[in-house]
Amino acid sequence: MTKRPLRFGLIGTGRIGMVHAASIAASPNAVLSWVCDPFIDGAKSAASVYGGTVTDSADEVFASGEVDAVLIASPTATHIDLISAALDAGIPALCEKPIDLDIVRVEGLRARVASSGVPIALGFNRRFDPGFAEARARVAAGEIGDIEQLSIISRDPSAPPAAYVGVSGGIFRDMTIHDFDMARFFVSDIVEVSAVGTRTFDAGAREHGDFDTAVTVLRAASGAIVTITNSRHSAVGYDQRIEAFGALGMLQVANQGTSLVSVSTATAVESRPPYQDFFLERYAGAYAAELEEFVKLARGEASTSPTFDDGRAALILADAAQRSAEQHTAVAVDLS
Amino acid sequence: MTKRPLRFGLIGTGRIGMVHAASIAASPNAVLSWVCDPFIDGAKSAASVYGGTVTDSADEVFASGEVDAVLIASPTATHIDLISAALDAGIPALCEKPIDLDIVRVEGLRARVASSGVPIALGFNRRFDPGFAEARARVAAGEIGDIEQLSIISRDPSAPPAAYVGVSGGIFRDMTIHDFDMARFFVSDIVEVSAVGTRTFDAGAREHGDFDTAVTVLRAASGAIVTITNSRHSAVGYDQRIEAFGALGMLQVANQGTSLVSVSTATAVESRPPYQDFFLERYAGAYAAELEEFVKLARGEASTSPTFDDGRAALILADAAQRSAEQHTAVAVDLS
Amino acid sequence: MTKRPLRFGLIGTGRIGMVHAASIAASPNAVLSWVCDPFIDGAKSAASVYGGTVTDSADEVFASGEVDAVLIASPTATHIDLISAALDAGIPALCEKPIDLDIVRVEGLRARVASSGVPIALGFNRRFDPGFAEARARVAAGEIGDIEQLSIISRDPSAPPAAYVGVSGGIFRDMTIHDFDMARFFVSDIVEVSAVGTRTFDAGAREHGDFDTAVTVLRAASGAIVTITNSRHSAVGYDQRIEAFGALGMLQVANQGTSLVSVSTATAVESRPPYQDFFLERYAGAYAAELEEFVKLARGEASTSPTFDDGRAALILADAAQRSAEQHTAVAVDLS
Amino acid sequence: MTKRPLRFGLIGTGRIGMVHAASIAASPNAVLSWVCDPFIDGAKSAASVYGGTVTDSADEVFASGEVDAVLIASPTATHIDLISAALDAGIPALCEKPIDLDIVRVEGLRARVASSGVPIALGFNRRFDPGFAEARARVAAGEIGDIEQLSIISRDPSAPPAAYVGVSGGIFRDMTIHDFDMARFFVSDIVEVSAVGTRTFDAGAREHGDFDTAVTVLRAASGAIVTITNSRHSAVGYDQRIEAFGALGMLQVANQGTSLVSVSTATAVESRPPYQDFFLERYAGAYAAELEEFVKLARGEASTSPTFDDGRAALILADAAQRSAEQHTAVAVDLS
Repeated sequence: MTKRPLRFGLIGTGRIGMVHAASIAASPNAVLSWVCDPFIDGAKSAASVYGGTVTDSADEVFASGEVDAVLIASPTATHIDLISAALDAGIPALCEKPIDLDIVRVEGLRARVASSGVPIALGFNRRFDPGFAEARARVAAGEIGDIEQLSIISRDPSAPPAAYVGVSGGIFRDMTIHDFDMARFFVSDIVEVSAVGTRTFDAGAREHGDFDTAVTVLRAASGAIVTITNSRHSAVGYDQRIEAFGALGMLQVANQGTSLVSVSTATAVESRPPYQDFFLERYAGAYAAELEEFVKLARGEASTSPTFDDGRAALILADAAQRSAEQHTAVAVDLS
Repeated sequence: MTKRPLRFGLIGTGRIGMVHAASIAASPNAVLSWVCDPFIDGAKSAASVYGGTVTDSADEVFASGEVDAVLIASPTATHIDLISAALDAGIPALCEKPIDLDIVRVEGLRARVASSGVPIALGFNRRFDPGFAEARARVAAGEIGDIEQLSIISRDPSAPPAAYVGVSGGIFRDMTIHDFDMARFFVSDIVEVSAVGTRTFDAGAREHGDFDTAVTVLRAASGAIVTITNSRHSAVGYDQRIEAFGALGMLQVANQGTSLVSVSTATAVESRPPYQDFFLERYAGAYAAELEEFVKLARGEASTSPTFDDGRAALILADAAQRSAEQHTAVAVDLS
Repeated sequence: MTKRPLRFGLIGTGRIGMVHAASIAASPNAVLSWVCDPFIDGAKSAASVYGGTVTDSADEVFASGEVDAVLIASPTATHIDLISAALDAGIPALCEKPIDLDIVRVEGLRARVASSGVPIALGFNRRFDPGFAEARARVAAGEIGDIEQLSIISRDPSAPPAAYVGVSGGIFRDMTIHDFDMARFFVSDIVEVSAVGTRTFDAGAREHGDFDTAVTVLRAASGAIVTITNSRHSAVGYDQRIEAFGALGMLQVANQGTSLVSVSTATAVESRPPYQDFFLERYAGAYAAELEEFVKLARGEASTSPTFDDGRAALILADAAQRSAEQHTAVAVDLS
Repeated sequence: MTKRPLRFGLIGTGRIGMVHAASIAASPNAVLSWVCDPFIDGAKSAASVYGGTVTDSADEVFASGEVDAVLIASPTATHIDLISAALDAGIPALCEKPIDLDIVRVEGLRARVASSGVPIALGFNRRFDPGFAEARARVAAGEIGDIEQLSIISRDPSAPPAAYVGVSGGIFRDMTIHDFDMARFFVSDIVEVSAVGTRTFDAGAREHGDFDTAVTVLRAASGAIVTITNSRHSAVGYDQRIEAFGALGMLQVANQGTSLVSVSTATAVESRPPYQDFFLERYAGAYAAELEEFVKLARGEASTSPTFDDGRAALILADAAQRSAEQHTAVAVDLS
């Protein structure tokens, strides 16, 4: 018997909310039932394309009796309350990262999430990127032996507006948080964080005391070392690479090109067009796969969706990196 | 004002027909209105997924008054009659290649197509492949100067069933026909065809006197030389490459990989997973773009759809190649 | 016991003669004993760097009693007489390609070479290129199954002076002759030649009725097809690639880059510097290896040096290609 | 007027000493005059191939009056005394890295080197690697803007014997020292060192409390961040890569392949043979170029040879890395 599509309430219709709206509409296993945004025009616009009842009140969504799951794509500061509301209503939620910028608030909710039995997933979409997922599966299959070194390169095409930098929580909580989760995707037993951050080009970072350039080194109990290289800009396009090194060899995930065409001339050979511009292009497939996996979680089936605890672990690593970069010392972490 | 989607009648629901059905269903500019197949179960199956009224009679489609265009994906032997019926009904048609295996029948219809004013397009989907289209646009922009040599490599993953080989019209009319059109896409003034064919591995080719391996060389009036390399099998996967060489340099269109992951070990470095299996994967985007371009043609807008005359030219080249390979001599052609 | 280095007489001190002089000087198994050039200043110049007694008379070299082998690097028209002289003197010779531009003269010498017992090698240096030699060895080891298609791309960086074109014997005998030998290095049983030649850019080719652009297709008794793609110019640098295709896969020999550095910017990624300029750079190692192998031949040891008969076979193929391109027909060949 | 070749005294005939002996013999600007090794058989063996008078006493070399320069390739512990002897004799010296494992001894000699006027060069051969040198020149030319991030990957093929690890001074002073110099070659204003080291596979590292795996992060006053990734083993072969990232793009120096041949089959495409085994192969050209540059230095000509102070700076960085890895804190450095 075919299962009934999961009825989604989407909360937040900004850039990432619209990505999820499209994924829900495209999935045979999901349907957009309610669309909520305090900016009601945003909700209306989303609903006009992808369907759903419109509201500016999240409470109305939870109370509607017409949603089987919520997708929380609203500003970070609202995540904790919305997850709480989902727990109250007993409705599974897929929440965008990060859970919150304040680990105290995260820890405050943790026990309740654990005891509630309500599935809460975190939007670490990169776990569902075909390249990263394939690399991890091949590592797990032993193709290169145990990981001894993992390099994650993650550079955005250009720095966000200065105003955004000011409320972002800093590069580690805002941008590296994805890489921290990716690090844990490959290497689970991280015990120490060392970070170096500088500001070399971005006025917003200078204005708000943030970094625009950073390297974070994570040490695992096993002896594995993870290196995360971040920059807030990249002339070449969105730079997203992973290299896993073990005793038997190396697995490399390359950037996604935008064309199969290369040109060779008297001055250069095999020049290819630049990489994809940004995450909407690079991770389009990952967002769709993320949704499918959450549908399984919400239905109580076996699922690999990242959890609330994955979101908490990434934030702990981000906090440690922030402290390490500020105090110029390694910071021990306990992710248990 | 948004235009009303074009109502399609699909004739033929085999493998390629289903590709077109999916393209029509996915396009905002097209809708599947009628589905026709003498094997009525095929038509029903297609309609159950993509919609449309079902029939086993093409006449009924043309008479329905409910189709703005037809997509002819039935067996080759039916193409001429169905194009004729489309002309009779004044309904634009997108017909799968080849028009027919017999150039006499094609020439017989040519004047009528030309004078009818009814748009007839040929399904040379590769013109819409992003890589080939980009290469051609860059050639046209003068990036490598005039083309002096063009190499087209086109190898299928595995030979078709022997029964199919027997009715295929031979490798040149069945398989190379796509490459002949691609040759003309880059080099328009071809005047001579030299072909060498052998049979080395395929029992079907041996049984039916066909070739499984062929190299065809086309000479253009400009002095440009096109080389087409064909094989009915390829262990590596679907091998579809183009290399355009001019006075200023070289443009190369590579095969499409299936993964961003490479592995390096003690025995080999940078090994990547094999290429895509076959045309459904490699040319998925091309089929969609082909449909959009045909919609423009059917609406009387500017369009780059390949025409009936493109289909005729490819068949003339295929016939010449067949004769050249059999008689071991170059064959002059007149494509005007 | 270490063997005494072979004492060489070098005949001809043009560009290629100087390459051989350097190889002889650098080899622990060879020493330059005599240097001969009718332009005595050339001989003196070579001897001043690499040693040896100078003469303008080849007869003197053969009569000196001080040479164990000769290296014939003089103009093509002198090769037959110098090989004859070597046979008379019982002195092994390594002769640059081609033996002669006239197959009748080559056939006239053939029986004498065969019955003489004096080792005569031909300078098909590319057999000793590490990449081509590795590819052939791996083919021979069965890595890709029997060869079904072989593609040889061979483009010079720029056309020779018009005067040279006039005496070169034409592109097939002058340039493709290397590729004919390479074809036979991989596929031995060639039975038919089809060639297409055009002149599109080179004034010298136009003036002398030669081609500057050519594609030659060779058919083997086994059904294997070899395609040779030639151009007298290449903006990208010396273009020398081989691709061998068999039932189990494909072996590709790439061009030699000049740098390990690539650059990625906002307009292009992974751009690398152009290929090596010409044969002196690309085949430097091949010339040295060719000499070592000839030393073995001259000493009566097992050797893979190409022979007089290899030179004859390449010329037969060149003649057939010339005739095919002129008469627009395939030409059968008998290389036995 | 051609200059007389520089007469070298070579001190030390181990593996690296023999590399230098060959470079000296091959250079038109250098000749091997004396060869010294307390293991006299080593000296004799070197001299039998490359020439020179043999001795087991370095004093005898300096006193001979027959050397214009010395090349110090003896064990690290002897470097300080031999440099001192060179200063006493007024003879220029090219000394293998490191100067010493004890920075106090290095600082003790520093003023004397500076005031002596005797050229002392350090054997940081990688500066002369064509790829690294090209990348640095292109950075200096502004091709990618100022460096913001530099990644140096440096992995040896396999761990040294445990006994060697015990006297090596640790991975940072023994292996990373080359990378510290390479970091300064690209980024001169380093002010802070953070290192993470682990031991995961090498019994020698465990036995002697050394690391076999390390990541070092260097912060520059400019805000540039350098990441050095080291491993004592690499299944793939000698892994030596550099990636320089700036506002305008990225320069990458790839590993040197060992073959132009790639193979594609049903299970993997474009597989190439592993990288070169170790430094003797990868840096062969660099050693020769290093010697030529030292000859200029010894002759008082303009030279880019790394200096005693470069050797000192690398050791300071190594000491700081060692401390950082042991104490889990960043360490400020002053290289002035």
